Amino acid sequence: MAKKNLLIIGAGGVANVVAHKCAQHNDRLGDIHIASRNIQRCESIIDSINRKQNLKQPGLLKAHAIDALDTNALITLINELGVSMVLNLGSAFVNQSVLHACIETGVAYLDTAIHEDPAKVCETPPWYANYEWKSKQACEAKGVTAILGAGFDPGVVNAYARLAADTLFDSLESIDILDVNAGSHGKYFATNFDPEINFREFTGQVWTWQNREWVSNQMFEVKLTRDFPVVGEQSLYLTGHDEIHSISQNLDVPNVRFWMGFGEHYINVFTVLKNLGLLSEQPVPTAEGQTVVPLKVVKAVLPDPSSLAPEYTGKTCIGDLIKGTKDGEPKEVFIYNICDHAENYAEVESQAISYTAGVPAAAAALLIADGTWDVGRMVNVEELPAEPFLKTLAELGLSTRIQDAEGDRALFA
Amino acid sequence: MAKKNLLIIGAGGVANVVAHKCAQHNDRLGDIHIASRNIQRCESIIDSINRKQNLKQPGLLKAHAIDALDTNALITLINELGVSMVLNLGSAFVNQSVLHACIETGVAYLDTAIHEDPAKVCETPPWYANYEWKSKQACEAKGVTAILGAGFDPGVVNAYARLAADTLFDSLESIDILDVNAGSHGKYFATNFDPEINFREFTGQVWTWQNREWVSNQMFEVKLTRDFPVVGEQSLYLTGHDEIHSISQNLDVPNVRFWMGFGEHYINVFTVLKNLGLLSEQPVPTAEGQTVVPLKVVKAVLPDPSSLAPEYTGKTCIGDLIKGTKDGEPKEVFIYNICDHAENYAEVESQAISYTAGVPAAAAALLIADGTWDVGRMVNVEELPAEPFLKTLAELGLSTRIQDAEGDRALFA
Repeated sequence: MAKKNLLIIGAGGVANVVAHKCAQHNDRLGDIHIASRNIQRCESIIDSINRKQNLKQPGLLKAHAIDALDTNALITLINELGVSMVLNLGSAFVNQSVLHACIETGVAYLDTAIHEDPAKVCETPPWYANYEWKSKQACEAKGVTAILGAGFDPGVVNAYARLAADTLFDSLESIDILDVNAGSHGKYFATNFDPEINFREFTGQVWTWQNREWVSNQMFEVKLTRDFPVVGEQSLYLTGHDEIHSISQNLDVPNVRFWMGFGEHYINVFTVLKNLGLLSEQPVPTAEGQTVVPLKVVKAVLPDPSSLAPEYTGKTCIGDLIKGTKDGEPKEVFIYNICDHAENYAEVESQAISYTAGVPAAAAALLIADGTWDVGRMVNVEELPAEPFLKTLAELGLSTRIQDAEGDRALFA
Repeated sequence: MAKKNLLIIGAGGVANVVAHKCAQHNDRLGDIHIASRNIQRCESIIDSINRKQNLKQPGLLKAHAIDALDTNALITLINELGVSMVLNLGSAFVNQSVLHACIETGVAYLDTAIHEDPAKVCETPPWYANYEWKSKQACEAKGVTAILGAGFDPGVVNAYARLAADTLFDSLESIDILDVNAGSHGKYFATNFDPEINFREFTGQVWTWQNREWVSNQMFEVKLTRDFPVVGEQSLYLTGHDEIHSISQNLDVPNVRFWMGFGEHYINVFTVLKNLGLLSEQPVPTAEGQTVVPLKVVKAVLPDPSSLAPEYTGKTCIGDLIKGTKDGEPKEVFIYNICDHAENYAEVESQAISYTAGVPAAAAALLIADGTWDVGRMVNVEELPAEPFLKTLAELGLSTRIQDAEGDRALFA
């Protein structure tokens, strides 16, 4: 039941990594198509793959123009190309249209981030229930595999949680997902993803799962400082994030929180922009009568995130700090990965933030292709067996490490 | 040779103060017309004058709509209304069109700030020579009185310099104009004037007159901390400003500098906006294809400066720190004024920053009206006798004080 030939939607940094990694395994994945509103960005990815000689064996690698909000256009393209899998790495605004096209055509679907409505910031938990999960029955009925949030976070961190629940603990007390980028892009200020998506994560309320209830905080209200392997002491802040919304519903754990690392400079710039109203997605009129969305102007003046990769140095550390009990004793583990911006750029011409999000999507594609994860229904990553995923990740360049009472060591290496 | 009946151009905070102050003396000034692009703002000023019962005797107080960039429309309006004086308190972009209309119609002209070209930031010194001074001969030929920069700074501080040169020193070594607003508007961030004009002052190079040469610095490069009367210790930064450009040419003084007080919070917000490119007057394209001038969007999200006045508390301190020699001995004086935001608002419904800029323009209008300053040519304030101006200011509510070796006392009170 091997599924071959795939279509990548999107042409940003994560799509670039996914395309490189799929190309490195095109013997198992077949044809690779890349489609985006801007076909030139797709062609740039293909140029990059050729430059890095990352296509494993001769095979199709082709760019297409698509408006990913247009479900009918997507259906036509999927049918024309004869793909069996769509990897959605487009903006968070296109999940619903791409998912519906996959259900209609019966091909497998995968994404790395939750759907967002451009007009809304920070929706009610559990967020997946507002959009993706409404299609669970449709997927089941048509036997469509739809894997939601198959990047690093969400994605790998969900698998870490599942691994802990399955093999390391008898019962879980808390999962704290810790995401630190200790790298430097050398600019005065820049966001690592599309600024519009990046800031939207932090402008609203912060929802976390505490004592089996949804708790709301303000961004930058709750701070955590911790000494990490390799990257040292870092300050993190309680943040809302996709995986809290699914893990809290799928695993039996009273506390699921997400913490993101921020430097003081980032917080200062963010605070100034937010307090002035420049991160608002609501249009304002200028004195000259033009109607403008401030956030889109901030995006226009910031460096293009894709331009940062060549100069990026330093490392990322992302993982799950998990507490619970094993054999009646309290236990604590930190399962994590370390990535190096410059090494990643040398391999696929993207930095570690895109690399950590993209490699898992390619690994998931391999597991759909060989049937391991081709489950014929809609799932979040914590609902799938973790071990084959983590082994494939290690093979593809993302190693898993664990820190516990017995020390610090590699898993599945 | 009394000149009666005047037209105020503009309807911002300074125009409001000028209108109130002229109304308080309409027995000496005659009809008062107010014209702006937005006639409703002119009518609001008239409402405010009536509310505060500031019209001294029954008289004409009338609003008009005008595009002050349209010289022909201005000529028509001036002729229709039969005014003998135009007080230009419009944006710094309209000086040239209003001045040309006054020269054409032969009526007196007055403004409070130097002309600016919207497309240029920080022009070459001496800035007046690029625009206003090109009309010196035309004014002389037609006997038109044109008083440039008759606000507080430029304006009153130029008169302080002239007073010092005439009566307090034998020779001048340096004039440092110090402008401190120690008030608080209670907002996260706001500018006290039109943000577009306000930020334009600080984004470019800073030109000052040192050792009889033009010297260029960056904004916030040179800092001065000083203990002021009433408002205490304040930090100021070397800034470019209109009056340096005229005083350096009109008075025999080797050093003329301008220093503006800024708090750390203002500098932080300004620095973030500037470094991100959000203070740029150059259009940028958004991802959606809209062309937007970032500075105009910043202006759109900031509080309207005119909305700050009701809540403004605290005081301003603006003056000239002057060094030189008298009778062969070194001498130093600080000539200054203190204003109180809330007191000014209670009187004319504007805060002290508008009040200090507007009252001098009204005082100058009275001196044109009674002939004292009706000189029939184009002048900057330091070219006119200082004493009648400072006495009229004291009468109108802006008292002058002096701090020197003999202590601190009022002048002309």
